[in-house]
Amino acid sequence: MSKRRNLYLDNKDLEVAKEEYLKALNDLSYQEELISTIDALDRYSAKAIYAEYSNPSYNSCAMDGIATKSYLTKGASEKEPIILSKDDYMEVDTGDLLRKEYDAVIMAEDLIEVKEGYKIIKPVYPYYNVRSVGEDIVAKEMVLTSFHKITPIDISVLLASGNKEISVIKKVKAGIIPTGDEMITYEDKLEEDKIIDTNSWLFKNLVNKYYGEGKIYPITKDDPKALKAMINKALAENDMVIISAGSSAGRDDYTPSVIKELGEVYTHGVAIKPGKPVVLGRIDNKPVIGLPGYPVSSYITFMEFVVPVMKLLSGIEYEEYPEVKAILTKTLMSSLKYREYVRVKLGIVEDKLIATPLKRGAGASMSLVRADGFCVIPQDLEGLLEGEEVAVRLSKDLKVIADTLVIIGSHDLILDVIRDIMIQKHSGIELSSSHVGSLSGLIALSKKETHLAPSHLLDEASGVYNIPIIKAMFKDEKMAIIKGVKRRQGFITKKGNPLNIQTISDLKRVSYINRQKGAGTRVLLDHLLKLNGISKEAIIGYEHEVNTHMAVAISVKNGDADTGMGVYSAAKALDLDFIDIAYEEYDFVTYASYLNDPKVKWFIEVLKSEEFIDEVEKLGGYTLEECGKVILL
Amino acid sequence: MSKRRNLYLDNKDLEVAKEEYLKALNDLSYQEELISTIDALDRYSAKAIYAEYSNPSYNSCAMDGIATKSYLTKGASEKEPIILSKDDYMEVDTGDLLRKEYDAVIMAEDLIEVKEGYKIIKPVYPYYNVRSVGEDIVAKEMVLTSFHKITPIDISVLLASGNKEISVIKKVKAGIIPTGDEMITYEDKLEEDKIIDTNSWLFKNLVNKYYGEGKIYPITKDDPKALKAMINKALAENDMVIISAGSSAGRDDYTPSVIKELGEVYTHGVAIKPGKPVVLGRIDNKPVIGLPGYPVSSYITFMEFVVPVMKLLSGIEYEEYPEVKAILTKTLMSSLKYREYVRVKLGIVEDKLIATPLKRGAGASMSLVRADGFCVIPQDLEGLLEGEEVAVRLSKDLKVIADTLVIIGSHDLILDVIRDIMIQKHSGIELSSSHVGSLSGLIALSKKETHLAPSHLLDEASGVYNIPIIKAMFKDEKMAIIKGVKRRQGFITKKGNPLNIQTISDLKRVSYINRQKGAGTRVLLDHLLKLNGISKEAIIGYEHEVNTHMAVAISVKNGDADTGMGVYSAAKALDLDFIDIAYEEYDFVTYASYLNDPKVKWFIEVLKSEEFIDEVEKLGGYTLEECGKVILL
Repeated sequence: MSKRRNLYLDNKDLEVAKEEYLKALNDLSYQEELISTIDALDRYSAKAIYAEYSNPSYNSCAMDGIATKSYLTKGASEKEPIILSKDDYMEVDTGDLLRKEYDAVIMAEDLIEVKEGYKIIKPVYPYYNVRSVGEDIVAKEMVLTSFHKITPIDISVLLASGNKEISVIKKVKAGIIPTGDEMITYEDKLEEDKIIDTNSWLFKNLVNKYYGEGKIYPITKDDPKALKAMINKALAENDMVIISAGSSAGRDDYTPSVIKELGEVYTHGVAIKPGKPVVLGRIDNKPVIGLPGYPVSSYITFMEFVVPVMKLLSGIEYEEYPEVKAILTKTLMSSLKYREYVRVKLGIVEDKLIATPLKRGAGASMSLVRADGFCVIPQDLEGLLEGEEVAVRLSKDLKVIADTLVIIGSHDLILDVIRDIMIQKHSGIELSSSHVGSLSGLIALSKKETHLAPSHLLDEASGVYNIPIIKAMFKDEKMAIIKGVKRRQGFITKKGNPLNIQTISDLKRVSYINRQKGAGTRVLLDHLLKLNGISKEAIIGYEHEVNTHMAVAISVKNGDADTGMGVYSAAKALDLDFIDIAYEEYDFVTYASYLNDPKVKWFIEVLKSEEFIDEVEKLGGYTLEECGKVILL
Repeated sequence: MSKRRNLYLDNKDLEVAKEEYLKALNDLSYQEELISTIDALDRYSAKAIYAEYSNPSYNSCAMDGIATKSYLTKGASEKEPIILSKDDYMEVDTGDLLRKEYDAVIMAEDLIEVKEGYKIIKPVYPYYNVRSVGEDIVAKEMVLTSFHKITPIDISVLLASGNKEISVIKKVKAGIIPTGDEMITYEDKLEEDKIIDTNSWLFKNLVNKYYGEGKIYPITKDDPKALKAMINKALAENDMVIISAGSSAGRDDYTPSVIKELGEVYTHGVAIKPGKPVVLGRIDNKPVIGLPGYPVSSYITFMEFVVPVMKLLSGIEYEEYPEVKAILTKTLMSSLKYREYVRVKLGIVEDKLIATPLKRGAGASMSLVRADGFCVIPQDLEGLLEGEEVAVRLSKDLKVIADTLVIIGSHDLILDVIRDIMIQKHSGIELSSSHVGSLSGLIALSKKETHLAPSHLLDEASGVYNIPIIKAMFKDEKMAIIKGVKRRQGFITKKGNPLNIQTISDLKRVSYINRQKGAGTRVLLDHLLKLNGISKEAIIGYEHEVNTHMAVAISVKNGDADTGMGVYSAAKALDLDFIDIAYEEYDFVTYASYLNDPKVKWFIEVLKSEEFIDEVEKLGGYTLEECGKVILL
């Protein structure tokens, strides 16, 4: 080994690491700056703001009409009207100055025009229909307190009260340094062995969300000298520095040693997963934080460490999404070595809040896009059990989750199409789908953890899809099938099918990429192998499992396997060849009682819509004769 | 009358006006534009976005360690370790490309260095510690749906999936034209008879909040030709035009006639208060809306008419604050002529949500700053009764309201100081005070509509403050007084006291500005008048009432009255003279049981704090010996 690895990161408790770090930084505080009030939207006031002017700044007429002297109107009535002659009043419009000689305004609607001037039939009292000076705001009054987030209304009131400039809390400037020899910018051409730096943009946008200004520096190579120079440059221009990647203990991870050389490192390694290799340091009077390179790790460590530091440097308590209790749909095992963060999808089924875990890998950035929240497994637990009530930190609004149609089961590309059409139609309904395979979906349905279970399970005995197994699984329940699509299922091969794969027997001479247990496609393969007397062991790659049709297709495209079974649309999307094996029925199973749910009604509406038919046609490989039809079992 | 007034605005029902207008505009829709993904934070996707690249784009090593061929490790155990020699593996770091000849990675922690290479004691299977191509995102998969508000995570996933540019919904460009001969910009010198244009900034910032880009045009005089030219200019550069003021039926209100001349007017005048004189029109294919000039009217009509039009032009359903039910603390009478919007402060007292109405004037822009929501009185009701449960449209987060200490009663400048210190100390507690006078505050307390009632009520018989009246009003309750300040109460006069006001008898020869009934200051005046045998009728201006000490002071400053009674700090704030009359006790009355409320505890903490003492000293006219002391009655 040319360079020695340092395998021994700390494994410090998260709360301890955070507390120590914030204590070490507690001499830092927010700064103020004077800005033009018109630029102050969503900024925070640094101190209380007082009115300079009164508003209105003069006694003004509150109505269109005439300004007059109130004592002249005393006693006016329908029986004994009073005539005001031209010397007694002046015509005014709303907002006009009330001249000192007058003390009241009579509105136009109450005036009867006569030769001499106006006839009136009721008296007015002093300051009637007059906006007195300071009626709205009195000079020297407090208009806004400290630490107030400035709204559109605040800005207009500040301007009305003579505050052209105000003192606000300065935004926290954070320099962001992407590192790594393999990194390229999103503008560079993507080549094999290269990774697009996306974390810097994640950090920059998160910094901006948390009252900061993120600035991205050029990608720095894995070279301590270059890193040192870049850190010094970023330190000079910012209030804090975030270094992306290079924070672990690999051969090319220089972040911890460089920070140590320039300043102090308080923690290197925290007992969390993902996100362990975090570096918490300080150079001069500025926080310097090294975050791990995996997208999910970087997001979690940003939220756990950078956000509290930004709170310290801005003095602002940001609004956070609250924590809720939800029922976990799947047992999650976890190590006692760390606290683990599992992304979950949430949904409300029969008034219970249900949490379905998403992919756990640190690289699964799509799981962050899909997640409704995080379930945190404490370090002292070996896991959380299926059916247990667990705490979930929301990352979306609970209102949106209440309007979410939950779908757990078999995967198909049409699910995304349905979701998009529902949103386009402004149904107000979100669709959340988890891809666990047909069988697991039906199990989730039986536990009332999903509204719908998409399924394409073939009953080997009868050759009928879905109905036999539903009848077997849900004996005492009134069930319904919402008919979906018929889809072409077959072997996906490289363009031109160079290995000439035609039948199931050909699998014995090529490498295969498989679907996970419980997936309908896997059941179909196993059924075909059995029919043809081929053993699983004869298939190279049988153990190599992935979760979606598209994952099968990309494996073939990439040359990791020669073929795999999947739907036509997946092959077409990646411009691969396809050999028909079966035409199968992909349907949505639900309880008959759920058909009354407005979310399910909308779903059926979409299945029958022209937009859906058009989009599915583009995908290819589907027929839709019965789509949206409901069969009660 | 030189120019004729048109008194006859429509009085169209709000919902009818809105529906007709949106129907007339229903050929309009959102537009798309292609922008760089890095600029897309908080924008909305115009259509579904699909992955261009897979992520990872190649099979990559998920760990620091070695890449090897999995079959070489078959059978490795502690008893029968396997030695991998240098030809069997290559050293890799996390993120490195897995070369085609290898199919698994063994992490560094599992390697034992030996002379030939590495010893291993457990096998690995194919694709172990490998991030397969597309594991996170598969090319051609849907990454985001249509109409999705783009988050920091979305941006990094979009970049990772090869979407450098995306199609988003174009922001709605709104031209804003301030009008009126009396209007000046906030940068101009404020002179009597002039009004600072603040509505344009309100509109611009609201437009920006609702996915638009507001552009303010120069102030246009009340001149139809000039207005026409400015509308045409704004129309050419924007998707819609908002005209501020000039929308009523006064002599100088040209907005409706000019829109009619250039296009079509659907509605002029809606049955709402404030906000009646609204103009809903269209010129060519662009909405043109005239909004009234009063700040509150302009805000309400913006929310009721401009926001729905912006929704139409952007296709976006904004998140809105929900409606809640609250108990009304004061009867609100309202005309059958219109639907009325009353700003309210909210607070939770003994688990009941309480709504206290704020100033109702259309010009009361501070009431918008202070408001927690709007209570809407339907047109077919003559009002809402005290104690009634009413619907309130929130304009703040209900969470904040739950943490609000409610104070209803007598006004003093120290209330703002206390509020600011509570916020500065990050207590998490907001303070909401309504100024209704001492007596009304105690009544609110008796109805459990407030946590604290600030009071300075003198018992004429005993000469003792507060205690006798509390004992009389709350016979069977355990009450507490939190001692506040002693404050100098007296006559506020012009600088130099030109009229030489010294005693109560002098009031007979000058003009007076009074406080409202139930205010402690009013009680004190009435007491003194009685003592001195002076009749109320002898006081000029006795009927001219205002609600705060500062309002009294500004009236004197402005010359509307020669004197009025108020506290020293108000006179000092406006640099006026002050003649001592009494040293009175301004205390906070509460139930003994409320002392356990953390919000009340914080309040007492602040009263005793050094920051508070410092700030009150700056105000002047107070002594603080007993401040924060609790007396149980």
